[in-house]
Amino acid sequence: MKQTLLDTKALEKALDEFADARDWRRFHSPKNLAMALTGEVGELVEIFQWRSEQESWLVAQSPETAEHVRQELADVALYLVRLASVLGVDLDAAIRDKLVLNAQKYPPL
Amino acid sequence: MKQTLLDTKALEKALDEFADARDWRRFHSPKNLAMALTGEVGELVEIFQWRSEQESWLVAQSPETAEHVRQELADVALYLVRLASVLGVDLDAAIRDKLVLNAQKYPPL
Amino acid sequence: MKQTLLDTKALEKALDEFADARDWRRFHSPKNLAMALTGEVGELVEIFQWRSEQESWLVAQSPETAEHVRQELADVALYLVRLASVLGVDLDAAIRDKLVLNAQKYPPL
Amino acid sequence: MKQTLLDTKALEKALDEFADARDWRRFHSPKNLAMALTGEVGELVEIFQWRSEQESWLVAQSPETAEHVRQELADVALYLVRLASVLGVDLDAAIRDKLVLNAQKYPPL
Repeated sequence: MKQTLLDTKALEKALDEFADARDWRRFHSPKNLAMALTGEVGELVEIFQWRSEQESWLVAQSPETAEHVRQELADVALYLVRLASVLGVDLDAAIRDKLVLNAQKYPPL
Repeated sequence: MKQTLLDTKALEKALDEFADARDWRRFHSPKNLAMALTGEVGELVEIFQWRSEQESWLVAQSPETAEHVRQELADVALYLVRLASVLGVDLDAAIRDKLVLNAQKYPPL
Repeated sequence: MKQTLLDTKALEKALDEFADARDWRRFHSPKNLAMALTGEVGELVEIFQWRSEQESWLVAQSPETAEHVRQELADVALYLVRLASVLGVDLDAAIRDKLVLNAQKYPPL
Repeated sequence: MKQTLLDTKALEKALDEFADARDWRRFHSPKNLAMALTGEVGELVEIFQWRSEQESWLVAQSPETAEHVRQELADVALYLVRLASVLGVDLDAAIRDKLVLNAQKYPPL
């Protein structure tokens, strides 16, 4: 019995509809979406770049950055799920397989 | 009634256990995880960099790249969900809020 | 006789003075600068993400993007040279060595 | 009189010859080079991701990482200079202009 670890189905459907309603499908090649994902990760990283590790724990609590970090995390998630979706990759299955590999590569203490 | 778009709960729990079993919690500051996310996105992008947009559609089908792209997508997802989790950000709620903002910014045709 | 391929000395000095005049040295750890470099590359990539390869050739000519792409290229260069500088890496020597390795890995046709 | 801050001419010429000798010009669209730059920055960031800020200062001295970080810095520089070159952007002039803007935005203390 496989357990679902990350259920992306509802979001994939919402993103399909969002793109279709704006005629964006022609822009959403995997190559372009990989670039867009990069751009959003860059914006996320900028929140952390001048903060110490200790300060970084507070980024989602501090009123100055809380909303910003939520939005950038969401943007990364949107492009990641969209990219997997247009590629036809089952992200949940990919994650489960990768965790098995990771557990072999890094055995528990 | 809010609909869940991306259910991350089972994965967050699995990642907590994975990190704890390896004493990795001390490495998993938000700052470090944001960097790790960047690194994984870099590896994902490398798959696409010399391929045309048209070729990029085939990346998950071609035997040469199918497994590689699945693994890199998984790695990005793992660090994204882990980062949101240690920050205490509800990624699903963040996504729903962001889609509302996006729909306002880019009205349907 | 070694030929200089990328002369960074004047820029390294200018960046030292710039940082010192603003008391930024305490922020400019290699880790933080690597993140800042990422952020700037993300901004650069955003210019290209929805453009086709063919359109991408015109980015520095089009009035809409010419100044933007110049600024983002400059930002990436600034952080790259700063990062090498604080690490004490001779970027020119590193480049010369890497070109030798690349020529061995990819022999000319 | 303008002072050159980053002299890229010799490297641009070397990269032109390198690409031509391998028939790589057809791959080196600005869009593709921006992606390649991202990939290399990702590899550079991976060196720093689990190291503390304090440890990051030692990355170019430690035998474990010294050669690796030199190579990744070089790779980033190669793609950055190549990208500016194919776009026809004078990186040195762009840098000088950007430093003027930065000095206005962040006045010295």
